[in-house]
Amino acid sequence: MGRIVCAGLGPGDPDLMSVRSDRAIRSAAHVAYFRKKGRPGQARQIVEGMLGAGVVEYPMEYPVTTELPFDSPEYIHCLATFYDAWAARLVALAQTQEVLVLCEGDPFFYGSFMHLYSRLQGRAQVDVIPGIPGMVGCWSATQTPMTWGDDVMTVLMGTLPDAELQRHMQTADALVIMKTGRNLPRIRRALQATGRLEQAWLVERGTMPGQSVLPLAQVDGNDCPYFAIVLVHGQGRRPEVQE
Amino acid sequence: MGRIVCAGLGPGDPDLMSVRSDRAIRSAAHVAYFRKKGRPGQARQIVEGMLGAGVVEYPMEYPVTTELPFDSPEYIHCLATFYDAWAARLVALAQTQEVLVLCEGDPFFYGSFMHLYSRLQGRAQVDVIPGIPGMVGCWSATQTPMTWGDDVMTVLMGTLPDAELQRHMQTADALVIMKTGRNLPRIRRALQATGRLEQAWLVERGTMPGQSVLPLAQVDGNDCPYFAIVLVHGQGRRPEVQE
Ligand SMILES: C[S@@+](CC[C@H](N)C(=O)[O-])C[C@H]1O[C@@H](n2cnc3c(N)ncnc32)[C@H](O)[C@@H]1O
Ligand SMILES: C[S@@+](CC[C@H](N)C(=O)[O-])C[C@H]1O[C@@H](n2cnc3c(N)ncnc32)[C@H](O)[C@@H]1O
Repeated sequence: MGRIVCAGLGPGDPDLMSVRSDRAIRSAAHVAYFRKKGRPGQARQIVEGMLGAGVVEYPMEYPVTTELPFDSPEYIHCLATFYDAWAARLVALAQTQEVLVLCEGDPFFYGSFMHLYSRLQGRAQVDVIPGIPGMVGCWSATQTPMTWGDDVMTVLMGTLPDAELQRHMQTADALVIMKTGRNLPRIRRALQATGRLEQAWLVERGTMPGQSVLPLAQVDGNDCPYFAIVLVHGQGRRPEVQE
Repeated sequence: MGRIVCAGLGPGDPDLMSVRSDRAIRSAAHVAYFRKKGRPGQARQIVEGMLGAGVVEYPMEYPVTTELPFDSPEYIHCLATFYDAWAARLVALAQTQEVLVLCEGDPFFYGSFMHLYSRLQGRAQVDVIPGIPGMVGCWSATQTPMTWGDDVMTVLMGTLPDAELQRHMQTADALVIMKTGRNLPRIRRALQATGRLEQAWLVERGTMPGQSVLPLAQVDGNDCPYFAIVLVHGQGRRPEVQE
């Protein structure tokens, strides 16, 4: 009997994936990954040049999303149907084969794979290989320590309501804001309102080709790519050591 | 001219370090790592069997700490002197050699290496290889997704005052509590007071030999090892998909 393995790929640079994921990818015969229709898919791009010759690929294409608001019941139902169908297909494959699913960063940290994982419980053996989360690649790209001593670090999604964003920006020392994209103007306003804008960095495509690291206050536009994270570094809440 | 490279080692299992760290460790000629006096040191143990034959080792032994309270001015001064001395020694070595410093998890995430890093600025070239943080290895060990949708995740140190712990436990969806050790009874009380104890897990030595994963409410004793993390998984704040 086969099994399903999900390999965390890390933040983007193939050198930053784990030895275990690297090995699993190079020896895989069946490889599945999410992508938007008509796009190569970030996960697939990270493993470019690593897959064996006869590998069978299963691009799992998200249902087209532009017509429906992403929080409408129709869209939510459409996505659920999509995950149901792919879970069933992977279970069938795993009767006889081992299937490797690729996932950016760490699969259990805001990863799409979790929607398959929950559906696969009790139907197939599923193993997950952790990865370096995208945020770790991003703070590494700033070449500045992220958290010291007793710093409190909070991870926020740019999709949260303004009031929630501000509440947490006020009380945490270090901040990570993901799902930035078109939420950038709202994130910027919330940082400004809580006095944290001057310390914020915008990291686009951390550890990937085309990486950009800029103080957020110096960023003009309101657009940023899907792979973008806003960071505020902690300063060390308790002076453990005299620097 | 040499340089100083800090290799993030990941949570403990050597298979979970990055391809880049793995390569750096196997080819290193000079390797430094922190340890307590008389102990092998966790970082050194992770790379056991990976070091080359003629490698020169530099165990950086923390000054003896039992006599002084860890937040006393004397202890803080003693630690600062210790980091100053090792920074100077590494700078001298890096004139002619490349030196590899080992660091558990990710070096920029609450890592001791940061106290060297800040002292090395402008005195040597320093490169940092990110790693999978210990918390990622720990939630991976629970075999349960950590964060979904718009979940807010907050990372807390067990050394924080009770009121701070409770405040954040009340407002975040997913929780990570590090530096557990002798703070376990206080952490447990704070979780109880905020109604989160029933969902909490205690992961000791995540991905290391002797790993233990238990619901915190079922843990009797008040002791836990240095490598221990308390986790509360997020449940998904916005139902992106029908599970
Ligand atoms: C659905 S989440 C997936 C997170 C992933 N599982 C991880 O561990 O990082 C996607 C978000 O992650 C962030 N992200 C992940 N990798 C990134 C990178 N290399 N650079 C910038 N942002 C990244 C972006 O904010 C993006 O909107
Ligand atoms: C000084 S911090 C270092 C964190 C490290 N740089 C990282 O990225 O995880 C030490 C704390 O990390 C946590 N920790 C790190 N690795 C762990 C593991 N494998 N299992 C359990 N706890 C771990 C423990 O709570 C410990 O008290």
